[in-house]
Amino acid sequence: MDPESVEDVTKKMVEDIKPDFIIYVGPNPAAPGPKKAREILSQSGIPTIIIGDAPGLRVKDEMEQQGLGYIIVKCDPMIGARREFLDPVEMALFNADVIRVVAGTGALRIVQEAIDKVIDAIKEGKEPELPRIVINEEKAVEAMEFTNPYAKVKAMAAFVIAEKVGDVDVKGCFMTKEAEKYIPIVASAHEMLRYAAKLVDEARELEKAMDAVSRKPHSTEGKRLSKKALMEKPQ
Amino acid sequence: MDPESVEDVTKKMVEDIKPDFIIYVGPNPAAPGPKKAREILSQSGIPTIIIGDAPGLRVKDEMEQQGLGYIIVKCDPMIGARREFLDPVEMALFNADVIRVVAGTGALRIVQEAIDKVIDAIKEGKEPELPRIVINEEKAVEAMEFTNPYAKVKAMAAFVIAEKVGDVDVKGCFMTKEAEKYIPIVASAHEMLRYAAKLVDEARELEKAMDAVSRKPHSTEGKRLSKKALMEKPQ
Amino acid sequence: MDPESVEDVTKKMVEDIKPDFIIYVGPNPAAPGPKKAREILSQSGIPTIIIGDAPGLRVKDEMEQQGLGYIIVKCDPMIGARREFLDPVEMALFNADVIRVVAGTGALRIVQEAIDKVIDAIKEGKEPELPRIVINEEKAVEAMEFTNPYAKVKAMAAFVIAEKVGDVDVKGCFMTKEAEKYIPIVASAHEMLRYAAKLVDEARELEKAMDAVSRKPHSTEGKRLSKKALMEKPQ
Amino acid sequence: MDPESVEDVTKKMVEDIKPDFIIYVGPNPAAPGPKKAREILSQSGIPTIIIGDAPGLRVKDEMEQQGLGYIIVKCDPMIGARREFLDPVEMALFNADVIRVVAGTGALRIVQEAIDKVIDAIKEGKEPELPRIVINEEKAVEAMEFTNPYAKVKAMAAFVIAEKVGDVDVKGCFMTKEAEKYIPIVASAHEMLRYAAKLVDEARELEKAMDAVSRKPHSTEGKRLSKKALMEKPQ
Amino acid sequence: MDPESVEDVTKKMVEDIKPDFIIYVGPNPAAPGPKKAREILSQSGIPTIIIGDAPGLRVKDEMEQQGLGYIIVKCDPMIGARREFLDPVEMALFNADVIRVVAGTGALRIVQEAIDKVIDAIKEGKEPELPRIVINEEKAVEAMEFTNPYAKVKAMAAFVIAEKVGDVDVKGCFMTKEAEKYIPIVASAHEMLRYAAKLVDEARELEKAMDAVSRKPHSTEGKRLSKKALMEKPQ
Amino acid sequence: MDPESVEDVTKKMVEDIKPDFIIYVGPNPAAPGPKKAREILSQSGIPTIIIGDAPGLRVKDEMEQQGLGYIIVKCDPMIGARREFLDPVEMALFNADVIRVVAGTGALRIVQEAIDKVIDAIKEGKEPELPRIVINEEKAVEAMEFTNPYAKVKAMAAFVIAEKVGDVDVKGCFMTKEAEKYIPIVASAHEMLRYAAKLVDEARELEKAMDAVSRKPHSTEGKRLSKKALMEKPQ
Ligand SMILES: [Mg+2]
Ligand SMILES: [Mg+2]
Ligand SMILES: [Mg+2]
Ligand SMILES: [Mg+2]
Ligand SMILES: [Mg+2]
Ligand SMILES: [Mg+2]
Ligand SMILES: [Mg+2]
Ligand SMILES: [Mg+2]
Repeated sequence: MDPESVEDVTKKMVEDIKPDFIIYVGPNPAAPGPKKAREILSQSGIPTIIIGDAPGLRVKDEMEQQGLGYIIVKCDPMIGARREFLDPVEMALFNADVIRVVAGTGALRIVQEAIDKVIDAIKEGKEPELPRIVINEEKAVEAMEFTNPYAKVKAMAAFVIAEKVGDVDVKGCFMTKEAEKYIPIVASAHEMLRYAAKLVDEARELEKAMDAVSRKPHSTEGKRLSKKALMEKPQ
Repeated sequence: MDPESVEDVTKKMVEDIKPDFIIYVGPNPAAPGPKKAREILSQSGIPTIIIGDAPGLRVKDEMEQQGLGYIIVKCDPMIGARREFLDPVEMALFNADVIRVVAGTGALRIVQEAIDKVIDAIKEGKEPELPRIVINEEKAVEAMEFTNPYAKVKAMAAFVIAEKVGDVDVKGCFMTKEAEKYIPIVASAHEMLRYAAKLVDEARELEKAMDAVSRKPHSTEGKRLSKKALMEKPQ
Repeated sequence: MDPESVEDVTKKMVEDIKPDFIIYVGPNPAAPGPKKAREILSQSGIPTIIIGDAPGLRVKDEMEQQGLGYIIVKCDPMIGARREFLDPVEMALFNADVIRVVAGTGALRIVQEAIDKVIDAIKEGKEPELPRIVINEEKAVEAMEFTNPYAKVKAMAAFVIAEKVGDVDVKGCFMTKEAEKYIPIVASAHEMLRYAAKLVDEARELEKAMDAVSRKPHSTEGKRLSKKALMEKPQ
Repeated sequence: MDPESVEDVTKKMVEDIKPDFIIYVGPNPAAPGPKKAREILSQSGIPTIIIGDAPGLRVKDEMEQQGLGYIIVKCDPMIGARREFLDPVEMALFNADVIRVVAGTGALRIVQEAIDKVIDAIKEGKEPELPRIVINEEKAVEAMEFTNPYAKVKAMAAFVIAEKVGDVDVKGCFMTKEAEKYIPIVASAHEMLRYAAKLVDEARELEKAMDAVSRKPHSTEGKRLSKKALMEKPQ
Repeated sequence: MDPESVEDVTKKMVEDIKPDFIIYVGPNPAAPGPKKAREILSQSGIPTIIIGDAPGLRVKDEMEQQGLGYIIVKCDPMIGARREFLDPVEMALFNADVIRVVAGTGALRIVQEAIDKVIDAIKEGKEPELPRIVINEEKAVEAMEFTNPYAKVKAMAAFVIAEKVGDVDVKGCFMTKEAEKYIPIVASAHEMLRYAAKLVDEARELEKAMDAVSRKPHSTEGKRLSKKALMEKPQ
Repeated sequence: MDPESVEDVTKKMVEDIKPDFIIYVGPNPAAPGPKKAREILSQSGIPTIIIGDAPGLRVKDEMEQQGLGYIIVKCDPMIGARREFLDPVEMALFNADVIRVVAGTGALRIVQEAIDKVIDAIKEGKEPELPRIVINEEKAVEAMEFTNPYAKVKAMAAFVIAEKVGDVDVKGCFMTKEAEKYIPIVASAHEMLRYAAKLVDEARELEKAMDAVSRKPHSTEGKRLSKKALMEKPQ
């Protein structure tokens, strides 16, 4: 979205809809559109969390000064945004792999916990303490509470590979001109991600081998429950 | 969302935002919320496509009578919506597998084509002909234009397995009471889907073995281009 | 075999050989040949168990009225009996996959137990109580006594996929005329089964990861023994 | 079966049933039971083919002198016939792997061709020329008419591994006394076979990657047809 | 080796053995031991090629000024040299994976070509032109002459992952003190490498699917030949 | 190396360098070159261990009479030394697979232990007792101290397959003349080894599933430590 559209939508959100709190999710929080959005959100006084990818690191301090919360998900890489790969099927498969990595490594669980805390505070009528988190491989796997240590390190490995995918796609999209060069670069990034997703699957299967997959569903009242053995009730 | 929320949002859409056309995506178009939405959308006169999953088959004729377009994606199964599995990580992994199946079998491409046609018509100032499509395995793989016939039949196999996942999840969620019975049923449905996703991956790798992965990115003007050899330009 | 041949063979069995009890195994117990056989077997007074696949469900009650025992194995699907696939290699590979599913899910163990009971009764000079069992995924995995719950649900998933293979092969063999349509349908059914067999293998490997593969060999006296740890003696 | 039972059954076959020709299939044609059977079959004058496994090599010349045809399938290994592994599920899985190897390497096709020739001769009223074949890896893969040379060599590799399984099982069953020693030996033989079966699958998938799986179904008249491309008619 | 041992061995080499040319292979050409060796080799006047890993990049210019040839193999990562992982089995498996990546991506072929050229020059009595090459993923895959473009990009992906392994091991070995932190880091690096090696295998299998594996054996006279189809003679 | 070169190098070693003890590693200790080396080493009086592959079995007694120690590694097969396969990439990949098998089955650990003992003796000023070991599958896996019995039997299976690879390569290299015959034989041997290496990986993953990978690093003082749980310190 161009900056104007972002401005329109964001204003509508803070002026018309006026929600209790806002989660803004999108790539590169440092880009012009998101920058505009952050200004509006900051001035609105509505508690806001910006969820973004690695390029957002550059405006980490700025977001803190703006009074915004943020979660930077380092294992959510930029796609290979070259026309050859902007096929909806290719993009969907890439995103499926990203989701697998973000979810299976535990990064998603940090997001879940952060949002839960804000909701809890608001429910209790308190000012929510906004999260300011850069999710790296160590934090992700800690949140996932792996039982098998090899499951944990495989998830870390997957995280690091996925993070690197972003660098390779940046090289293919912004630092290489000739199609004969950037096509293999971008395609190799997507193959890397495919393998990161496979590693995540292998990690989860190791947890299954120990009947120790961690699951944290919410109770009817919205409390975060927890279970590990498949047949046990969440508590 | 409860029917009232759906009503609010849908009215806002047709009365305030008044877009050129509307794509409504969600599970079970036959449920009370979506039913309400369909009524409002039908009366709005704005060209609308309902994209839904298998339970939508029951209101296929009704949607046609309402003047709505529809696309029923049979390989998009209901998740195992039992508390034990409503863990965000589990749900995200399930959805990653669904995306892989919907994209890799070609179902997504039918959606892409249908929306492209409506956009083209609107751009040319014509009344768009609304799609009325039930995506089954044959139609999906035809749209994907596989080169290797085994890639095609593996994609069909994945589609059928994914479709069956929905039946098993319905059994686990609505037809079985005891946790000790529904937990294995739902868990087995999720394992089925994981394998459907693997089959899709195997199908795509077969296409790679022939350097014949079909990609259909849009040109700058929004025209749908096409390519098969990795190194060739989309045309 | 045509009904006459079946009649010949079955008569020879009940009139000449006159065994203590009879196990009749074959596809579709409802078809003309098997129907004839069932009549002869029923009238012979020799205790008989019919082992068949899903189409046998239609004559379940009839078999009970005939005083026959039966075991319907729902995960034993019809092959894709189109000329293109009636290659001995293709058929053998299909059957290898079926065997893997029937054995690894536990369906075979139900058959083993049922026959063991009849033999025990006859040995003791008692009238055997004939089994009347429809093997579905729940009964199969219960008989297999899985230790790892994910091994169990993967076996259930494999069972359900194999069962569905039969539906797809019926569609390809009896409901579709054109070769260009039925070939992909049948081929996709065989790919589905290949993946069901893979899932069974994955389930067994999970049991190995816990050193908990259930094995039930017979003792020299024909008693069914049991063991789980690889290095332990059957008991 | 003990020699007396074999004698009974074989006599019934040659004296009562008197078929046009006989195929005798079983392990170790050199053992006492099969030896007895071979004598009866030899004297009966009915054209007979003995199909057996590697131990049959010892009586190869004897069978020729007896006027019997034979096919020795070297990739059909003895099972690990120790009580610990005489679990029906284990045995069925072992046999599923054997079938996969025998079929997928092409060994089965040699059997198919040999029997077809005998049938053809008998149909034409001629004395059938009986096959005398020892199937090794080279002959097997030649019969399978692989297109991809790596598919062929993978099948050869699988054949050789399967053949070696027999040696290891002989060691575990006849040359090792202590359970703590023979259990791992037999278990390792079964793991070897599992991988031989996997290799066969990999070989077939390579042929699929080239759309070149060879299939040889019979025509309605019993003529052996042939096809390679999935979508083509057998000819 | 400590610098003194290196000095001893290197002096023995240049003063006693005095070969026609020297290939010095080892990790980190910038470290004290290799630095000493480079000085001696540089002064010896014997044509020398230093083959090293990524840390060697720091002394690239220095080596050129010393008149030394060099080949920096960026996909040859440092091992996780923490006591917990200095088990000979772990190290051997790590190195097996490194070899797979160095060989299968084509990096090894660049080394082969460079050494061949030096040998050719010396044979012809010419002063050899020493190679000065930093092997990155593009150069590696170019040397490997892949036929299938996906094989090529998978090899590139493997190269980049392997390169990243070095960074993670540096972090685990030199930048992290506590065992509870560095163990997972190092273990994750080794898992990354295991997957890089798998990707290389997948790449080679794709070439097999096209019967296009490039092989470059030497003729009896030491000429580098070339072949692609498995059954063809090298030429 | 030709016998003369071996003689030169070995003499230099025993006369000039005069180490405390010698480890001689190379293929076929029975060949002319190694035979010459063994004579020199035997006469030198320096404690020597010959590490070799299966053909060394022929000179086992001879080595004992020569006062030499030896370790015969039966799972270290001869490569397919036909020109078509003497491509450096192919050879490196073959060796990577060999390393994986030698290391992962435990064979390497026997070598490690044997050398450690000699070093310990020499350090203590004692005459070292030289090892005389033929490493077969049972000894290898015992040294590896597997926890999961299936990991152990998979390693045994891999060992036996790798051992068989040598036989097949001997057949392809020395007993077959025509390229059209030996190429598939050698290629099949390399495929067998690739699967042996895969099996070793599967074995190690099973140990990971139990968090029981055995690692035996040395302490700073050179003592052999041991650990199984990933996070524990070696002791
Ligand atoms: Mg993104
Ligand atoms: Mg859904
Ligand atoms: Mg059947
Ligand atoms: Mg059922
Ligand atoms: Mg057998
Ligand atoms: Mg290194
Ligand atoms: Mg690079
Ligand atoms: Mg060697």
